Amino acid sequence: MAAVFTVYGMSDSGNCYKVRLALEQLALPHRWIEVDSTRGETRSAAFLAKNPNGKVPLLELADGSFLPESNAILNYLADGTPLLPQGRLERARVLQWMFFEQYSHEPYVAVARSILRYLPPDSPRRAELPRLHERGHQALAVMERQLAAEPFFAAGRYSIADIALYAYTHCAADGGFDLGRYPALRAWLERVQTQPRFVPLPR
Amino acid sequence: MAAVFTVYGMSDSGNCYKVRLALEQLALPHRWIEVDSTRGETRSAAFLAKNPNGKVPLLELADGSFLPESNAILNYLADGTPLLPQGRLERARVLQWMFFEQYSHEPYVAVARSILRYLPPDSPRRAELPRLHERGHQALAVMERQLAAEPFFAAGRYSIADIALYAYTHCAADGGFDLGRYPALRAWLERVQTQPRFVPLPR
Repeated sequence: MAAVFTVYGMSDSGNCYKVRLALEQLALPHRWIEVDSTRGETRSAAFLAKNPNGKVPLLELADGSFLPESNAILNYLADGTPLLPQGRLERARVLQWMFFEQYSHEPYVAVARSILRYLPPDSPRRAELPRLHERGHQALAVMERQLAAEPFFAAGRYSIADIALYAYTHCAADGGFDLGRYPALRAWLERVQTQPRFVPLPR
Repeated sequence: MAAVFTVYGMSDSGNCYKVRLALEQLALPHRWIEVDSTRGETRSAAFLAKNPNGKVPLLELADGSFLPESNAILNYLADGTPLLPQGRLERARVLQWMFFEQYSHEPYVAVARSILRYLPPDSPRRAELPRLHERGHQALAVMERQLAAEPFFAAGRYSIADIALYAYTHCAADGGFDLGRYPALRAWLERVQTQPRFVPLPR
């Protein structure tokens, strides 16, 4: 089947991995165009013409229009599939956790990983790590509390809320986070990894 | 009509104002319980039992359950109303701008306001302002580009995407942002203010 979607993404980015995982689990053919934000490729004039906010992932639709924002892309791709519950409150619960991910989790868990993974060991940005770890652990503790009570984040089943939160949580150790104190969270990571058509972050 | 919803919110917060504005525009009766996050009231044991992430706004539903995250609340309240388009791509466009708001706009435009409005003039956090202004203006420039081409953010009409972005943009001057260079954005602010049942941020 011909690819309907084109993804502009950086393979090592958790935000981009979300889109790859959803496309694979939904069995949607796609083309992947590698864009390396660590080399400034998201700030080129050509890329900014596609996404004025200068970020990946970016989804190109069959009609040539572009959709940015990883979690908006997940909602678009999953609409009408089992990965996105249809009830009014269930949909809101999925979004609750996806906004939590972008506001209370990613800016700490992903940014700590980015500093340790992409910047030199003498980067002055390492001074940010204690605060990032403090806030990141606050987010992980909120997740642990949810996962001690329920198997998944929303509607009692695997959804794009789990994909969104799995992306940077499963590789939190890259950012210096020890997940040892979160047993329910670690069991959830394993549940995600056993979902049909699961694919890992490319390493 | 009896109130169906209870909002836990801080009246001066833009994130909480989003919920107030949507409830008013949807003519939904509600009870408002003031929670002052600047006095630690969102970190009390009683509040954390309602929202483990310790943030306002928080919506209490008729069944006694709680929904956090301002933009998830907006999606819940507006579902099935003219404030949330129903098409698959239109819904994704609304979410695109709402995730943009929480990731690329609020952490700069709202945080600059918070530093200047709630912290003493000698706060060391004022050192963050140059970076907050740089990133905030990047977000405002992305908005200006959209609003120079279209009257609203998604689906060609007023939606919860506009409510989400209006909340902290209209009071950006509180954070030291000069909107003079954004004529399309200023015209949009006026369009929002003339929508039916509009209510201003309480001052």
